[in-house]
Amino acid sequence: MGYTEVKFIELNGLEIKTTLTDEEKSIDDHISSFFTPTDDYGTKVIGFDVEWPVEYKDSTDYLFKRANFQLCDGNSCLVICLPFSSDVVPKSLHNFLRMPNYTFVGIGIKDNLAFLEKEHGIVFRNAVELGPLAASLMKMPHLRYCGVDELAFEVCKLDLRKYRPSRLAFNWGKYYINKELVKHATVNVYSYHKIGSALLRPAPVPQMPVLITVRSGSPQY
Amino acid sequence: MGYTEVKFIELNGLEIKTTLTDEEKSIDDHISSFFTPTDDYGTKVIGFDVEWPVEYKDSTDYLFKRANFQLCDGNSCLVICLPFSSDVVPKSLHNFLRMPNYTFVGIGIKDNLAFLEKEHGIVFRNAVELGPLAASLMKMPHLRYCGVDELAFEVCKLDLRKYRPSRLAFNWGKYYINKELVKHATVNVYSYHKIGSALLRPAPVPQMPVLITVRSGSPQY
Amino acid sequence: MGYTEVKFIELNGLEIKTTLTDEEKSIDDHISSFFTPTDDYGTKVIGFDVEWPVEYKDSTDYLFKRANFQLCDGNSCLVICLPFSSDVVPKSLHNFLRMPNYTFVGIGIKDNLAFLEKEHGIVFRNAVELGPLAASLMKMPHLRYCGVDELAFEVCKLDLRKYRPSRLAFNWGKYYINKELVKHATVNVYSYHKIGSALLRPAPVPQMPVLITVRSGSPQY
Amino acid sequence: MGYTEVKFIELNGLEIKTTLTDEEKSIDDHISSFFTPTDDYGTKVIGFDVEWPVEYKDSTDYLFKRANFQLCDGNSCLVICLPFSSDVVPKSLHNFLRMPNYTFVGIGIKDNLAFLEKEHGIVFRNAVELGPLAASLMKMPHLRYCGVDELAFEVCKLDLRKYRPSRLAFNWGKYYINKELVKHATVNVYSYHKIGSALLRPAPVPQMPVLITVRSGSPQY
Amino acid sequence: MGYTEVKFIELNGLEIKTTLTDEEKSIDDHISSFFTPTDDYGTKVIGFDVEWPVEYKDSTDYLFKRANFQLCDGNSCLVICLPFSSDVVPKSLHNFLRMPNYTFVGIGIKDNLAFLEKEHGIVFRNAVELGPLAASLMKMPHLRYCGVDELAFEVCKLDLRKYRPSRLAFNWGKYYINKELVKHATVNVYSYHKIGSALLRPAPVPQMPVLITVRSGSPQY
Amino acid sequence: MGYTEVKFIELNGLEIKTTLTDEEKSIDDHISSFFTPTDDYGTKVIGFDVEWPVEYKDSTDYLFKRANFQLCDGNSCLVICLPFSSDVVPKSLHNFLRMPNYTFVGIGIKDNLAFLEKEHGIVFRNAVELGPLAASLMKMPHLRYCGVDELAFEVCKLDLRKYRPSRLAFNWGKYYINKELVKHATVNVYSYHKIGSALLRPAPVPQMPVLITVRSGSPQY
Repeated sequence: MGYTEVKFIELNGLEIKTTLTDEEKSIDDHISSFFTPTDDYGTKVIGFDVEWPVEYKDSTDYLFKRANFQLCDGNSCLVICLPFSSDVVPKSLHNFLRMPNYTFVGIGIKDNLAFLEKEHGIVFRNAVELGPLAASLMKMPHLRYCGVDELAFEVCKLDLRKYRPSRLAFNWGKYYINKELVKHATVNVYSYHKIGSALLRPAPVPQMPVLITVRSGSPQY
Repeated sequence: MGYTEVKFIELNGLEIKTTLTDEEKSIDDHISSFFTPTDDYGTKVIGFDVEWPVEYKDSTDYLFKRANFQLCDGNSCLVICLPFSSDVVPKSLHNFLRMPNYTFVGIGIKDNLAFLEKEHGIVFRNAVELGPLAASLMKMPHLRYCGVDELAFEVCKLDLRKYRPSRLAFNWGKYYINKELVKHATVNVYSYHKIGSALLRPAPVPQMPVLITVRSGSPQY
Repeated sequence: MGYTEVKFIELNGLEIKTTLTDEEKSIDDHISSFFTPTDDYGTKVIGFDVEWPVEYKDSTDYLFKRANFQLCDGNSCLVICLPFSSDVVPKSLHNFLRMPNYTFVGIGIKDNLAFLEKEHGIVFRNAVELGPLAASLMKMPHLRYCGVDELAFEVCKLDLRKYRPSRLAFNWGKYYINKELVKHATVNVYSYHKIGSALLRPAPVPQMPVLITVRSGSPQY
Repeated sequence: MGYTEVKFIELNGLEIKTTLTDEEKSIDDHISSFFTPTDDYGTKVIGFDVEWPVEYKDSTDYLFKRANFQLCDGNSCLVICLPFSSDVVPKSLHNFLRMPNYTFVGIGIKDNLAFLEKEHGIVFRNAVELGPLAASLMKMPHLRYCGVDELAFEVCKLDLRKYRPSRLAFNWGKYYINKELVKHATVNVYSYHKIGSALLRPAPVPQMPVLITVRSGSPQY
Repeated sequence: MGYTEVKFIELNGLEIKTTLTDEEKSIDDHISSFFTPTDDYGTKVIGFDVEWPVEYKDSTDYLFKRANFQLCDGNSCLVICLPFSSDVVPKSLHNFLRMPNYTFVGIGIKDNLAFLEKEHGIVFRNAVELGPLAASLMKMPHLRYCGVDELAFEVCKLDLRKYRPSRLAFNWGKYYINKELVKHATVNVYSYHKIGSALLRPAPVPQMPVLITVRSGSPQY
Repeated sequence: MGYTEVKFIELNGLEIKTTLTDEEKSIDDHISSFFTPTDDYGTKVIGFDVEWPVEYKDSTDYLFKRANFQLCDGNSCLVICLPFSSDVVPKSLHNFLRMPNYTFVGIGIKDNLAFLEKEHGIVFRNAVELGPLAASLMKMPHLRYCGVDELAFEVCKLDLRKYRPSRLAFNWGKYYINKELVKHATVNVYSYHKIGSALLRPAPVPQMPVLITVRSGSPQY
């Protein structure tokens, strides 16, 4: 009685295939499809996100019944909706997030990892926040504080703003019936992947030059 | 039986529309109105603040019954007063604060985020403290320690000091009947927005030049 | 049956008016009197201190029944003695400490803030430790470790040492009857204000010049 | 009734001997075989990893019944599968991980150490994360964020990508019957060892040169 | 039935007066005697130490019944032995440690402060560790890791090594009858004071010169 | 019924006397023998290590019944085996570890200190990790990550590798009958002492020279 659906999302003329599923077999297959290596020894970068719907708050704490995992390797996206009856994530997802040869990238990823460790016992090997990464590697400090749309444009001239949702009154706990929400998830992790891949590609990232002007003569205080 | 009221606040000849509401529909609509993109791929910056009235302290801890959210995108402000009967924030507010393409800015924002995570289960994607941001990007260290009025003047020549309240004996838990308090909230988040937008705009911020004087000759100890 | 008393403290020929009170009306009025803006868009700086008398230790923890708040804007000081029957601080004090356009300065202020958050639910927007501030802005590292008297002299040529108390066997929980103790509080927060204002004034603080001597010729190892 | 099995894994024409065992005698012998010193006073580097299968979550916390230790010194690998009945790791493993003349290297090793300290009372002397190590010693900042395959290629021209598993739906708690999984563990710790040894070898690591261009003449602001 | 005793300790021909006491009146008087200001606006520096005898460990935690406070301003020392019946430190000691115009210096002072906050509710305003202070202000990094005897010699040519105790089997809980132990305490806090005063005196501390050798010509990689 | 035994360990032709004991009198005497000062005002450095045998894990936590302390001042070593019946360490050991004129050095010393504070109430004054110390003072970053054998060779040309144990299946809880284990402890703390003394000796440590190449002419971007 599992659920698997494939949707095709058009982004700037490119068609991205996004699979929504809560079935182990589909998850296994899709994760295997992420395994084609890069051409140039560069690290494979996976755009990663997770949302957890707040159900209600009891006397001691919040109840998080489900988590929505969103992954993208640039060619296709995988959206995993953990079912109600399970606390433990599927084996292949758990093992994938611990593979030492992948780098998972996102926005606000540190807080997401803390949630995953506490709620699902998952510890990543290698996850990176995109803003500080761009600011550090490109030596453009203000990128540390920017949103994903500006990062996408600055780092790889990608403009996906027209695919943003127009309303936000949705519930991630039920999103598998909503095309708008699938597109929203796809745009996010696809752009994370694109930004991360551009930043971490072996060829050196162009940097702003540093110029020190030296004035000859005696110092005057 | 929800509550929605619109007030117009005049700031230096500009009229800012501030909506006070505790109705989901009004919140959804107003948040959608924040979605017009910038002209130049720059990150959309939202001035953000929250106040939580202290009701009383029981034997173990303080009781925070409500929170007042204040948001501004420069054109209009939204002030959300969470009602007594609810622990969970409206869906569109929750989703908005997690949008990866927005940057939320404020003064003392880090402590506010800790409160929101503990009391309402909200985790921001991207929130920035204005003082350190200005000090770092403009290379003027003393701005790290300044108040919002000096930041507004230094960063964007904005002077809103005459709109500050003259008395402070108010209670944020009941503010929706008080014009003075609406103006106070509007001035704050409007100036946060203006400062953050100026600092994070793609064009490089003017910086103080660095001058190293080199004296030729032998060192003398 | 509240308590309000005004004392005049002479400091180097200047007369400082210090109000001691536990009445809400007096607190509201005095805080309003702090609101005159600076002449030059500079941040208003408030010298701030708090003392909490240790009453006794029960089996699990210390009991702190009251806190003494001390504030100064250079013209006048306000000393608030929280009465026994209250856990919640007066509204206008609470709101003042959260105003984003003020900077509160002191010595050992970080530990004071931790106490205020735990015991009274107060979270500051903007508070700064004076020693590191002076060391950083004036580029004189040893100021980070100095006491308030040396800071006062180095930063603004202020010498208030002759007003220091001659004995320390007092109890902050009962100080409103003691002229010596009022003077002690006044000297502290007045000097905090003076130091902080001088450091944070928009005109650049004079800095020690950096001189790099370059010797021509071949390196010799 | 212990279990010991030796598998030979071919990696780029080299045959690596991997021992899988839960017997103390085998563990003692294999660890002794790690003791041949390096030729040049350089530190012996051990590639190290640990996986712990999540069994299920009870009402308070996760249950981790076993841990799989994986070690490699370049010549051979040791994979230790702690049996169900034991909380305490074998003596020679415990003592080896505390030897002050070895450096243990890995990816995500900090989180692994936290797990080992909490679950098995083991505290390492000297363990190092490979990404930051490579970035710092080679002065190539982007290596901090890369996966193990790119590190292996950048640091020692090693390409083991074709030995990666094609599917991830395995369970580390039962892996000693699965040749694919043995190869996976071997590839990981073997490559950790190779990268760490190359980085920590006494001969200085080649670094990117730093070039400061100095322009003569007056500064122009 | 309090206890006060004065001992005279000869250090390099100088006679230091050390007062041992557990009487409030003696403590008040001695602390007042610390109040003579410096000649040159420099911060008054107090050498500070504390020892707490471990009595025994019960099932949950250690029992610390008393603390020995040791203070020195260069002219005289005060050693306070808290009596058994008291959890709260004398008022004038508590107030002195919170005076913002003094800097308290020592070795291992950070851990001492954590103990004092937890066991006695004392929070210092301004306390500094001597090793890092010397290393930072004198730009001699190895001083960060040195013992007090080397610091005393490097910073102020003071050699007190011959006054060190010859045996260490003493108990700080009973030390007021032991001349050897009084000398030990005196040597420590006296040397702390001397080092701290020399480092924090307004006249700039002599620093090791920095020499950058510049080689003309083309870079060769 | 105490236990004291002296063993002589030959290291590179030098004979080191190692005392194993659990008797207070022997501990007092040996610690006194550490008190001969250095010739040149340099800090006395003690090589320090501690091992604690894991006995078993009960339902809540691990049980650590004993600790083995290992100290060396270069001339002799002291190995203290805390007996079963005691939670409190001998007075002279406790006081020695808090002497402000000694620096204790080791590998992994920070975790050891945390253990000693938690299990035995001991807080060191001054303890230093050797790897970072060598890396920082010698400006050779890779030393931060090296094992003790490489540090010993790089810092003081000491090669003790042939004295390392050949098997590790020992139990620190019973080691006083095992010559091999005594040698192992001696090699460790003796080499810690040698490395630390060489690094912290007042004469400046040789450093790698820094060479900045300056190219004249116009910058080319």
